[in-house]
Amino acid sequence: MAKDMTLYWGSGSPPCWKVMIALEEKSLQGYNQKLLSFEKMEHKSKEVMDINPRGQLPSFKHGNKIINESYGACLYLENQFKSQGQQLLPDCAEEQALVLQRMFEGQTLQQKLGDVIYYSWRVPEEERHDSAIKRNKEALATELKLWEGYLSKPEVGPYIAGKNFTLADVICFPSVAYGFRFGLSQEKYPKLAGYYNQLKDRPSIKATWPPHWLENPQGMDVLKDV
Amino acid sequence: MAKDMTLYWGSGSPPCWKVMIALEEKSLQGYNQKLLSFEKMEHKSKEVMDINPRGQLPSFKHGNKIINESYGACLYLENQFKSQGQQLLPDCAEEQALVLQRMFEGQTLQQKLGDVIYYSWRVPEEERHDSAIKRNKEALATELKLWEGYLSKPEVGPYIAGKNFTLADVICFPSVAYGFRFGLSQEKYPKLAGYYNQLKDRPSIKATWPPHWLENPQGMDVLKDV
Repeated sequence: MAKDMTLYWGSGSPPCWKVMIALEEKSLQGYNQKLLSFEKMEHKSKEVMDINPRGQLPSFKHGNKIINESYGACLYLENQFKSQGQQLLPDCAEEQALVLQRMFEGQTLQQKLGDVIYYSWRVPEEERHDSAIKRNKEALATELKLWEGYLSKPEVGPYIAGKNFTLADVICFPSVAYGFRFGLSQEKYPKLAGYYNQLKDRPSIKATWPPHWLENPQGMDVLKDV
Repeated sequence: MAKDMTLYWGSGSPPCWKVMIALEEKSLQGYNQKLLSFEKMEHKSKEVMDINPRGQLPSFKHGNKIINESYGACLYLENQFKSQGQQLLPDCAEEQALVLQRMFEGQTLQQKLGDVIYYSWRVPEEERHDSAIKRNKEALATELKLWEGYLSKPEVGPYIAGKNFTLADVICFPSVAYGFRFGLSQEKYPKLAGYYNQLKDRPSIKATWPPHWLENPQGMDVLKDV
């Protein structure tokens, strides 16, 4: 039980989901949690701003220790609860190197997904260009092909960095799921689809599936032509 | 000596510099290194692409283990050489939480610096907008003020996450130095300037100072009005 931990989170946010999967994997169920609404701007509430001056989710506290950055929180949980639950960062140098490499490449994957998905949220109407949308989609397709290649290597799988579920999966799975939720073609990216379908029923992932995705299983189609 | 390590790097690149500072701090001098030119597109050479399909610097190898992502490489070096040189990630949960939090906030700092510094490189001429430049500069100023606030806390200093030099400094110092190199006002950001001036002669930092900054000490002024 993790009664001394508190997580403020938003449904469907990949950074929040990463931390929630890490908590499950480290057998840290029972933490205090508060689901907030981005639409209602609850991530800018005083309660959040008090521990996170950026007003972002996740916001995470362990006792009086604050680690809001999702990568930082996942590493912290693995380091502090190393022998509890699933080991997420292998000791073996070869395995650890690959886990860290994929984990941080996962940021680029998420960024390139966001560049397409959030374009019209992020860019004011008078600054939008079809050429930028096209370029962002091409960059995302290039990125996705790189991951298709990684997952095609015979030594890789079923997990993203080899034979064990690691921090690389904690970080990458929510982004991959996010891609498919927003309309990515499973036919066009079969290795990523295989990875997604193999992991989506893993207990830590199922237990933390975004509630509004469950309520409304129909996703969006912004990525359908990527 | 670190004869089984190879680093491909570019002068002035903050991600490369981070890895070089980490190598120095972990007493891993003597690694093989190759300084490549971004201008000559040497980061897209076969030699680099063979170990880094993204064609980016740094590209880093330890024996047959490849960790090109700078955050991954720094964490790997700390984990694999924990008791060698400077301890960069404290064991104490309180200290570790703050180091990880600042380390990953450092990405946002670097990203917001890049949004301004690289604007005309990244955005094709016909897609540029003065409104976007203004917004990026405002976002950078907000970010920098956050760090001024962090460095104003009585419990912080002389390092970015407390009394010891840690991974948070390995990650953040090159970004701070980069900001001043590109014209940030030391008067407007006195805490960051104090941090910069206090750390710039640290042996690991001095030994890895970007060679073309030494050759041409005059920086740019793109950030002078931020």
